[in-house]
Amino acid sequence: MSKNKTQKEYKLAADIAIFTVKDEQLHILLVRRAERDDDPFSGMWALPGGFHRMDVDDDIKDTAIRVLKAETGADAPYLEQLYTFSNKGRDPRYYVTSVSYFALMPYTSVSLNAGHGATEAKWVPVRNNTVSRKLAFDHNTIVDMAIERVRSKLQYTAIAGHLLGEEFSRPQLLDVYETILGCKLDKTQFNRSLVRADVLESTGRKEESKGHKRAELFRFKDGADTALFFPRGLVRASSRKEGE
Amino acid sequence: MSKNKTQKEYKLAADIAIFTVKDEQLHILLVRRAERDDDPFSGMWALPGGFHRMDVDDDIKDTAIRVLKAETGADAPYLEQLYTFSNKGRDPRYYVTSVSYFALMPYTSVSLNAGHGATEAKWVPVRNNTVSRKLAFDHNTIVDMAIERVRSKLQYTAIAGHLLGEEFSRPQLLDVYETILGCKLDKTQFNRSLVRADVLESTGRKEESKGHKRAELFRFKDGADTALFFPRGLVRASSRKEGE
Repeated sequence: MSKNKTQKEYKLAADIAIFTVKDEQLHILLVRRAERDDDPFSGMWALPGGFHRMDVDDDIKDTAIRVLKAETGADAPYLEQLYTFSNKGRDPRYYVTSVSYFALMPYTSVSLNAGHGATEAKWVPVRNNTVSRKLAFDHNTIVDMAIERVRSKLQYTAIAGHLLGEEFSRPQLLDVYETILGCKLDKTQFNRSLVRADVLESTGRKEESKGHKRAELFRFKDGADTALFFPRGLVRASSRKEGE
Repeated sequence: MSKNKTQKEYKLAADIAIFTVKDEQLHILLVRRAERDDDPFSGMWALPGGFHRMDVDDDIKDTAIRVLKAETGADAPYLEQLYTFSNKGRDPRYYVTSVSYFALMPYTSVSLNAGHGATEAKWVPVRNNTVSRKLAFDHNTIVDMAIERVRSKLQYTAIAGHLLGEEFSRPQLLDVYETILGCKLDKTQFNRSLVRADVLESTGRKEESKGHKRAELFRFKDGADTALFFPRGLVRASSRKEGE
């Protein structure tokens, strides 16, 4: 396949860290690679990914969207470029540049599907800001960076709401922040910071009955994904760093 | 060059937005492309960049470092991956994936050099968060994103100090923040936030004489580039958004 010692064929791929929250825990979607003699990572777990196809993908984000749809049966409400991994050691066969993305999806919108040469797909819990299994390629590095990015973005954006679907209550959003950041937040301060950031609008509806108190449902305003939202009320030692 | 309508050759490149501060203004390095009949952007100004070379570059960051050294004669004290631009419309000849970087350099360390097929290299001032001229490829988009990233990172890191060299005084750092953010900062609050963030250490030296008050010189502590630093004292309407 290679012309000489230093020449390999260039390939372009997209890999995606797809996150959801279920059972009050952050989860990431992993797929198991098929058993193949010519695959150096045969049978190992990996991030969903695929090669760019010039005939159908105008750009590399199209590749990510195509892979995501194939694996989950849905479009992600939030998809962001994470980092590009491009070095000669990533794959023994080709020089593969992987443009990595992360996506946030509500658990309920997903119907798992082992596409793209995978034999199995499943949600794996994120514990201690990592996944416990050894993944193919440099995917452990990508996963750890994606988790770090999601946690970091929670400190200055409201994008975590995309884990909840098109509409959600403020207590649900608070739960997601507490789950992912691994700390308690003061409800009053959190709600105040949401109001101040002005990223949500009421849908005019309330939650389905859950006892006598039914919380109001909200959706994102236009432009909310790039707006600054500093969730206040973090009850932990490092909270002073967030800008007191 | 292309096999059929939808197939082009894949190419991998690094493009770099190199920033400095001179004459109390943020500047970006641009190069002028040679006049060539087969170059669709012949003679136009562009970001410094170059193709990945498998024989010398282990990864794409090596390409960025090589290009930067060729253009400036120096290593940048700060180089960060910005974004990857990868779509079929970027270049009429190939499918070029450009991994873009931004670099921060002190003005004094640079000796400009038009390398990599460029005929001229010069510092161009950043005004209104953009550059005023039409650049080759999608480089205006890359430049605007790079400026936005630098300004944004100033709000939670101290990396702007790399524009000043290995050692700098706190008043010099304050000047850089004011220059790039385009607003005044309260000196006392700014200094207090620097102390709180604990990212600088004294070199034990003072500025060369500039009148009777010689400011103490500092350098970055290890790990300072990834540490959070929220510069306080921004005197402007939106300052409440930074986390009051």
